[in-house]
Amino acid sequence: MKALVYDGPGKIAVVDKPKPELRSADEAILRVVRTTICGTDLHIIKGDVPTVEQGRTLGHEGLGVIEELGSEVKGLKKGDRVLISCITGCGVCSFCKKSMKDQCKGNGWILGHIIDGTQAEYVRIPHASNNLYPVPEGVDERTLLLFSDILPTGLEVGTLRGKVKPGDTVAIVGAGPVGLACCITAQLYSPKKIVCFDRDDERLAAAKKLGATDVINPSGGNARELASKHFGEIDGFDVVMEAVGVPATFQMCQDLVGIGGSIANVGVHGTKVNLDIDRLWIRSTNISMALVSAHTIPMLLDLLAAGKVNASDLITHDFTFGEILKAYDIFTRAAETKSLKVSIDFQS
Amino acid sequence: MKALVYDGPGKIAVVDKPKPELRSADEAILRVVRTTICGTDLHIIKGDVPTVEQGRTLGHEGLGVIEELGSEVKGLKKGDRVLISCITGCGVCSFCKKSMKDQCKGNGWILGHIIDGTQAEYVRIPHASNNLYPVPEGVDERTLLLFSDILPTGLEVGTLRGKVKPGDTVAIVGAGPVGLACCITAQLYSPKKIVCFDRDDERLAAAKKLGATDVINPSGGNARELASKHFGEIDGFDVVMEAVGVPATFQMCQDLVGIGGSIANVGVHGTKVNLDIDRLWIRSTNISMALVSAHTIPMLLDLLAAGKVNASDLITHDFTFGEILKAYDIFTRAAETKSLKVSIDFQS
Amino acid sequence: MKALVYDGPGKIAVVDKPKPELRSADEAILRVVRTTICGTDLHIIKGDVPTVEQGRTLGHEGLGVIEELGSEVKGLKKGDRVLISCITGCGVCSFCKKSMKDQCKGNGWILGHIIDGTQAEYVRIPHASNNLYPVPEGVDERTLLLFSDILPTGLEVGTLRGKVKPGDTVAIVGAGPVGLACCITAQLYSPKKIVCFDRDDERLAAAKKLGATDVINPSGGNARELASKHFGEIDGFDVVMEAVGVPATFQMCQDLVGIGGSIANVGVHGTKVNLDIDRLWIRSTNISMALVSAHTIPMLLDLLAAGKVNASDLITHDFTFGEILKAYDIFTRAAETKSLKVSIDFQS
Amino acid sequence: MKALVYDGPGKIAVVDKPKPELRSADEAILRVVRTTICGTDLHIIKGDVPTVEQGRTLGHEGLGVIEELGSEVKGLKKGDRVLISCITGCGVCSFCKKSMKDQCKGNGWILGHIIDGTQAEYVRIPHASNNLYPVPEGVDERTLLLFSDILPTGLEVGTLRGKVKPGDTVAIVGAGPVGLACCITAQLYSPKKIVCFDRDDERLAAAKKLGATDVINPSGGNARELASKHFGEIDGFDVVMEAVGVPATFQMCQDLVGIGGSIANVGVHGTKVNLDIDRLWIRSTNISMALVSAHTIPMLLDLLAAGKVNASDLITHDFTFGEILKAYDIFTRAAETKSLKVSIDFQS
Repeated sequence: MKALVYDGPGKIAVVDKPKPELRSADEAILRVVRTTICGTDLHIIKGDVPTVEQGRTLGHEGLGVIEELGSEVKGLKKGDRVLISCITGCGVCSFCKKSMKDQCKGNGWILGHIIDGTQAEYVRIPHASNNLYPVPEGVDERTLLLFSDILPTGLEVGTLRGKVKPGDTVAIVGAGPVGLACCITAQLYSPKKIVCFDRDDERLAAAKKLGATDVINPSGGNARELASKHFGEIDGFDVVMEAVGVPATFQMCQDLVGIGGSIANVGVHGTKVNLDIDRLWIRSTNISMALVSAHTIPMLLDLLAAGKVNASDLITHDFTFGEILKAYDIFTRAAETKSLKVSIDFQS
Repeated sequence: MKALVYDGPGKIAVVDKPKPELRSADEAILRVVRTTICGTDLHIIKGDVPTVEQGRTLGHEGLGVIEELGSEVKGLKKGDRVLISCITGCGVCSFCKKSMKDQCKGNGWILGHIIDGTQAEYVRIPHASNNLYPVPEGVDERTLLLFSDILPTGLEVGTLRGKVKPGDTVAIVGAGPVGLACCITAQLYSPKKIVCFDRDDERLAAAKKLGATDVINPSGGNARELASKHFGEIDGFDVVMEAVGVPATFQMCQDLVGIGGSIANVGVHGTKVNLDIDRLWIRSTNISMALVSAHTIPMLLDLLAAGKVNASDLITHDFTFGEILKAYDIFTRAAETKSLKVSIDFQS
Repeated sequence: MKALVYDGPGKIAVVDKPKPELRSADEAILRVVRTTICGTDLHIIKGDVPTVEQGRTLGHEGLGVIEELGSEVKGLKKGDRVLISCITGCGVCSFCKKSMKDQCKGNGWILGHIIDGTQAEYVRIPHASNNLYPVPEGVDERTLLLFSDILPTGLEVGTLRGKVKPGDTVAIVGAGPVGLACCITAQLYSPKKIVCFDRDDERLAAAKKLGATDVINPSGGNARELASKHFGEIDGFDVVMEAVGVPATFQMCQDLVGIGGSIANVGVHGTKVNLDIDRLWIRSTNISMALVSAHTIPMLLDLLAAGKVNASDLITHDFTFGEILKAYDIFTRAAETKSLKVSIDFQS
Repeated sequence: MKALVYDGPGKIAVVDKPKPELRSADEAILRVVRTTICGTDLHIIKGDVPTVEQGRTLGHEGLGVIEELGSEVKGLKKGDRVLISCITGCGVCSFCKKSMKDQCKGNGWILGHIIDGTQAEYVRIPHASNNLYPVPEGVDERTLLLFSDILPTGLEVGTLRGKVKPGDTVAIVGAGPVGLACCITAQLYSPKKIVCFDRDDERLAAAKKLGATDVINPSGGNARELASKHFGEIDGFDVVMEAVGVPATFQMCQDLVGIGGSIANVGVHGTKVNLDIDRLWIRSTNISMALVSAHTIPMLLDLLAAGKVNASDLITHDFTFGEILKAYDIFTRAAETKSLKVSIDFQS
């Protein structure tokens, strides 16, 4: 079969590989139907994730059809169309029982990392009962790509850990795909304002389309002052989500958070940051940091089927699997190409 | 009347002042029965709190007897023996309604700060209905001193924001009065371990007396390694409370916190700290920082009356009000004098 | 001034009364701008509420302009346009501090019950700081009438006590004004289904307009079976709200609730009901019953101002205060007149 | 092997049966070390549980040693000493993922019910990874018997669903084994009062030993009035736990519950009861009803190992497995024999 592999720092390639086989009675082999590319894949290519070996098939998002099934898998059958969780959990360890599959002992984020991933014609999924979700009938298959990772991330790490409540004011720093997933999922709790901050006006336009009530480009100055200019005197935001991952944007979050407010860190950080504890403690502030565990996938799929999640505009480009190198190129040059998420279709 | 006042940086004095008078219909004038000294008072004396004017009566803890009462005060009467909340809330602003009296618009921590405090023979208490609590019968009056500030602080800022649950492992960094208040109140939620860290063995001995299951002096090395040596391989603590307020101890908390754990900052910090966000985000960590609001005083008094709070050993020294300068001296040289909290009695 | 009073069982009348005067420093006198009629007012007229004396001005909903203000009232000023809370709380008792103003010692539901109410040209509001809310700019004044009582009731007693969560299935038994308020407020938490049950097809049509995803008229049979016919095999609802108040509808709720589900009782019951505890305990069911405390009014007003509450269709008829007897007649014959809530305007 | 079986209504017998064998790769066969008898076993014998077939081995509590292990079982090995959960969950269905193993699709309470149970020399445990817990070192093996069912029941169905908080007043109606388990576990949350009600003074004495602060024998009159006589005027209890299961005791709970309080039903009811909804709704009351899911076993075992659960007095009688018929006789005549829980040891 064909697979897109990491070929050492700076390099990817489409190669031929043997089709994966079941290794344990609780696994499944899927024929992949669609996949997508994550910012994490770009980090791997840069060489930032040393646990990824050369030759590893990338990808931890996608949907497929079950071709083979171990004898101990429950609740699934051959031929089922299923969504793949970006996180793999055993289901029985103490973390899995607490809805923290990301911390599963021996698993967690392993697809396209420790084991071969979804950017290939076939993929092997361990602990299949726990990590595959039958696709609801009648939903747009392309939109489903957003439910493997990015929407659960926005919901679990941004909206839920930030504790968005009806009537809240929410600031989202960064309107890339992750920030936009925060924007989409925050709406499930009816905040009164969702204000997206980004230096790219294209992305701010996308944010407006996906439900932001206001957008601010902080290029022109201090984010807090710009917010005050925009809204009149404000007291800071109830919830601030960091969706970039650099010290400057984390600092911006500390400037934007209000009394009694929360900062939910969603961005992936590579260095320490400053914590203004001398200033924030008297304001009763909370800071959360987490990985996605993807336990909210079934609920999100239910809401999608009910027409309550409007996310399809987050996918901007469509490719066949034969064009995957081009898809990587477009996704890598996001600012220039105005790309958010891409769909890679194996069937065309 | 006599009052202990801040007399400019480095100086305090006992002076004569006019007895306070009611300024509004919802106030009370108390004859003070007992008071104590807080670490914050020492910060004021050092000149660290520029909002305190020269001549201000210090003190935000204590109990007294109601001598005069405004016409709009509800639920209290002349002659009532009452505990004074360290925090003053109006009761009707949006923060007061959310149990955040510390953020009360126009009030908050004002006693011994913006208005004259409790280290005097009489004190005026604004919004009395909301900030005075009748003393339950039959409880030890000296122990009550701990209920104005330090026990609510341990409970609200340490135990509740840290979300201590039955079966948790709790680490407390710093075994001074605030850390010990964390230790006392954490027990209300039945953690399986409470481990106190301090460089002073006397304070560790006090921690054991007040309910710590284990104590570790980190002078000899890295706190995490010492904990591992003590307990065998550990995975970090469920809840870590910072009760010192310097960058090194906040760093220790980041080393001690486990996967899915919480750091509850209780210490008062004067500078920024490093946040190891690059390391903590993949461990799903939460950090809370807050002021005490003292809304838990009535519940704590109920538990005291029921014999469920064992805190009296936190008071180590007793003075009359005539000896208040000596009390300050002893409390200031805490390591040397082995003092924790002191009782200052106006009646003797 | 003119006032609508209870004139003994079965009787109401518009009478002349002296304009109310301030009795305490924390009160306000309002010139009433708009009011409405509640189902509770009809109960009073029937003689079901013996604590209401003959001659009492009815009404506990409405908005007005502050004409006089006691010296201790905070956060309000003469001329402010304010919404009146149906519940009056002192703000300082233990219940008020727990957001349970309905249980306020000495107050609670007193307007149009223990003291004169809002169906008059002027009304006196005790503890004004705590029970009046400045009206946000630019909102529809007529819609505001729904924020004194019925929307907070739907939110607090139905949606919040029923714990509606994103993705939930919600059944609402009864599509009168209270059931419709449940339907409107449940949407703040993004359930996947809101199914309204009522025997009146007009009311079901209103429910569809106000956000129900499905409606079922149970006249033709058993509600659970009809739901199964409608949706295919179902496992019961996550949240069921009772919004009628008779034994048969409470029974219907017990038939509709799913495993692990909640019944939130919003209806006013005059007799005991059967509890199928022998059947429900093995299904892990929760039942909540409560009064509205109206502490959510400020949040709901914020959401209204942000355009996030679509409730105006709940008002079906408009009258001037001069027509109030006619308004009562229309509201009393609701099925026939297809009335839901009515607006009574003092200015026209 | 020897097994105690249900032999039709009114009858039990010790019989010879083949040793169980593994039927699936995720199962375990245990050699049973200790077991006990539950009130549910007595219900089965009476013929109240028609889903139990004649010849079924009874028992859903106990501990054993792993003799055989399926290839897919994780986290356990042959020879491990393990506690058996009374509830069997598959671990992957939607209920298991929500900590509701009691509602597991296809499992739940099956031991000694749908499949052979623990009152035999060997027992087969399905989904072993999920339903067996390694025994902590150094704990009293006899006390462990209480952790299969009765202590998790008291904690999950009484204490947690009743939401006991520090400072609460708790009433427990019924001081049999289940009520005493409520009493033991409520202490984990530091209520100020735990008042046990029972007509048997022996059981009240046991309650005092196990942590009740007060006991009341309601034989002499109305429970509420007796409580008022005991405590002075009271406002009802914050949490009331029903641990009997008949209409009269459920009624007593409705009389005892305070404003804003909760009734947690733990008793097993065979008939409908009256719900005083007309009286309770204005008091903001919550009623919970549930089965144990036993997901708290690991946390309770941790607390036992830490010396924080004092429950051993709940076991009053010791037997060998050879004496099991005598054990049933003693346990059945509980009032007369003053028995609470019994230990049945296979090793002696």
